[in-house]
Amino acid sequence: MTKPGTNSLRIYVDLGMNAEERRLLEEGTQGHVLVFPPTPVSSVLAKAERDPQFASVDVAFGQPDTQAIAEAGSLKWIHVSSSGITRYDHPEFRSRMNERGIPVTNSAGVYHEACAAHVLSFILAQARGLPSALGSRAANGTKEWLSLRGSCVPLRDQTVLILGFGAIGKRLAEILRPHGVKVIAHRRKPRGDEGIPVITDDRLDETLAGADHVVDILPDSPATRHFFNPARFEQFKTGAIFYNIGRGATVDQEALAAALRSKRLKAAWLDVTDPEPLPEDHPLWAEPDCYITPHIAGGHVDETKTLIRHFLANFDRFVRGDELVDRVI
Amino acid sequence: MTKPGTNSLRIYVDLGMNAEERRLLEEGTQGHVLVFPPTPVSSVLAKAERDPQFASVDVAFGQPDTQAIAEAGSLKWIHVSSSGITRYDHPEFRSRMNERGIPVTNSAGVYHEACAAHVLSFILAQARGLPSALGSRAANGTKEWLSLRGSCVPLRDQTVLILGFGAIGKRLAEILRPHGVKVIAHRRKPRGDEGIPVITDDRLDETLAGADHVVDILPDSPATRHFFNPARFEQFKTGAIFYNIGRGATVDQEALAAALRSKRLKAAWLDVTDPEPLPEDHPLWAEPDCYITPHIAGGHVDETKTLIRHFLANFDRFVRGDELVDRVI
Repeated sequence: MTKPGTNSLRIYVDLGMNAEERRLLEEGTQGHVLVFPPTPVSSVLAKAERDPQFASVDVAFGQPDTQAIAEAGSLKWIHVSSSGITRYDHPEFRSRMNERGIPVTNSAGVYHEACAAHVLSFILAQARGLPSALGSRAANGTKEWLSLRGSCVPLRDQTVLILGFGAIGKRLAEILRPHGVKVIAHRRKPRGDEGIPVITDDRLDETLAGADHVVDILPDSPATRHFFNPARFEQFKTGAIFYNIGRGATVDQEALAAALRSKRLKAAWLDVTDPEPLPEDHPLWAEPDCYITPHIAGGHVDETKTLIRHFLANFDRFVRGDELVDRVI
Repeated sequence: MTKPGTNSLRIYVDLGMNAEERRLLEEGTQGHVLVFPPTPVSSVLAKAERDPQFASVDVAFGQPDTQAIAEAGSLKWIHVSSSGITRYDHPEFRSRMNERGIPVTNSAGVYHEACAAHVLSFILAQARGLPSALGSRAANGTKEWLSLRGSCVPLRDQTVLILGFGAIGKRLAEILRPHGVKVIAHRRKPRGDEGIPVITDDRLDETLAGADHVVDILPDSPATRHFFNPARFEQFKTGAIFYNIGRGATVDQEALAAALRSKRLKAAWLDVTDPEPLPEDHPLWAEPDCYITPHIAGGHVDETKTLIRHFLANFDRFVRGDELVDRVI
C-alpha cells in the first residue's frame, strides 16, 4: 500500500453509503483522499450529478458522469458500481478511454452470484408451478390438484439458451449443471473458454427454435436494442419460456406481450423492463403468465459492503500496478 | 420376458390411468394378467378399497390395503406407487413381509428428482425474496426497492440440514452443491455412502442451532410424529428457514406457527400439512412468512407414465429374478 502522503490518490466516490460502509471504505483507502459529491446518490444504478470536484480526481468509483470524465484530466481509472455499463458502453467512449489509457472496471464480481441465483429461482419457480401452487387449497385427488401436479416440468434434458454470456451466464451454467439440462451460450465473439457449447448469430435461428428456456442477459447497446422483436419471438419454440435479467430495452415489450397472448411463449419472467417500473396500464401487467420483479436480481444483503470490498480489492491491485479484475474497457 | 401362458403372473393394479397409460402398462406386461379394482383410484396417494380379487394375485402395484395383503396367500411382491410408505411403515408389517419373503419396493426413483427440485425452488424463492418481489412496482432507489434488494440472501457458506436422508435428500445435496452451501444429513443409521457429513440424534441439537435451512423429508411413523415440536423449534438458529416435503404429521403445526410468530423462524415453506389441505381457519394460513403448496412436490407432467415405466423396469427385474430397485422392505 502507498504510504500516507506519498503518491496519495484522490478517489471520487458517488456511491450511497451509511456510516459503517463509509468506515469500511476509509479503512481500505488510508493514505488516500476520498472525495464525495455534495448530495448523496440514491442507488447503485442512479446517475450522479455533475460536480466540479471531479476535475482533479485520480480514481472514480460509482456511476461517474461521462461529460465529467471527458473533462477530468487527471483521471487514471474508473470503477463502475454496477454490472451493467450502459452509460459507458459506446464506441466513442471506449476509444477515448483507450486513447487516454484509462481502464474501466465494473462490479460484475459483486453481482454474478446473485443474478445467476435469481434466474435459477425463476426457472425453478416456473418448473414447479409455484405461482399457481403457492397458497392453493386444492385437495388431494381433485382436478385442480392433478392439474397443479401435471403442470410441473422436469428440467432434465431441456435446453437453456443464454444470450449475453459473461460472468452471470457462466455462473448460471454452473448452477444449472446438476439439473441435467443442455446449456448453450450465444455470444458475438466466442473465446473458447466458455466450457459449454457456444453459438454466434449464424446459428441463432435454429438454436432459438429448439430452446425450452431463453435467458436474456444482454447489455443495453444500439446493437441489442429490441433484439427480441416480433420476428425473433416467431423463431421461439412454442411453449418456450423467456427470462430477462439483462436490460429492458433489449426487448420489444409489445412483441413480448403478443407472444404471450398467442401462447407462442408459455411464460416470461422479467427482472428488467423499459421503463422501470412499467406504467400501470402496460399490457405486460395484464398477461397472467408474465412474472416481474423490480430489478433486484443483483441485490443482496450487505450489497454496498460487497461493492466496497470488491472496489478495495481492485484498488489494491491498482496501487500495486497489478492487472485489474472485471475490466470492461 | 416370460412367454405367454408359462408362469403367467396376476398383477393387481390400483393406479388411476387413462387409456394411453393403460396401454403402456399392458404392453410392458404382455403374457401376464392385469387385475384392476372395480372402481378407479383418484390419486397416487389415495388408499384403495378392499377387493376380493386381491386374494389370488402375485404382484401388487399401487397402494394395496394392508389387511388385503395379510389375506393374499399368493402375493410375491408389492410395488408402492408413491415415495412415502406411511401405510406400510410399521414394525409388524415389516417383519410379516420379511417372514413371508415379500419384498416391498416404492416409487422413490419417480419422485426424487421432482421433490428435490421443489425444495430448491423453495430455497431460491426465499433467498431471492420472490414472494415480496413478484409484481412489486417499486421504483429504482426507493425505500421499498432497497428493502427488496437487501432482503435477498446469498446461499454461499450457509448451512442446510436435511432430516430423513434418502433418495430425495441425496438428489437435493447434488443440486445444492454448486451453490457453495454446507449440506449436512441427519439419519438414524448412517451408511457411510452419503457423500456428505452425516449426524445422528446425539449431535442434532448443536447442528440445528447452526443450520440456516432445515429440510424435513422425514417419513410419517410413530417415531417421527411431531418430531418438530416446541422444544425442537427452540433449538433452531434465530432466523432459520424451515422446509417440509416429508409428511405433515412430523410437525407440531401449532408450534411451527408460534415459532414463526416469535420470529425464531424467518419463514416456513411447506408442501405437506396435517391435514391436507389445512382447514380455512388454520393459524398457518395467517402467518405471512408461511408458504404452502398442496402436496405437489413429486408431481410432474406425465407422472403416471413415469410411475408405470418405473414399475415395468422393476417388473422385468422381478421376472428375471434380479435384484429390485427402490426396495424399502
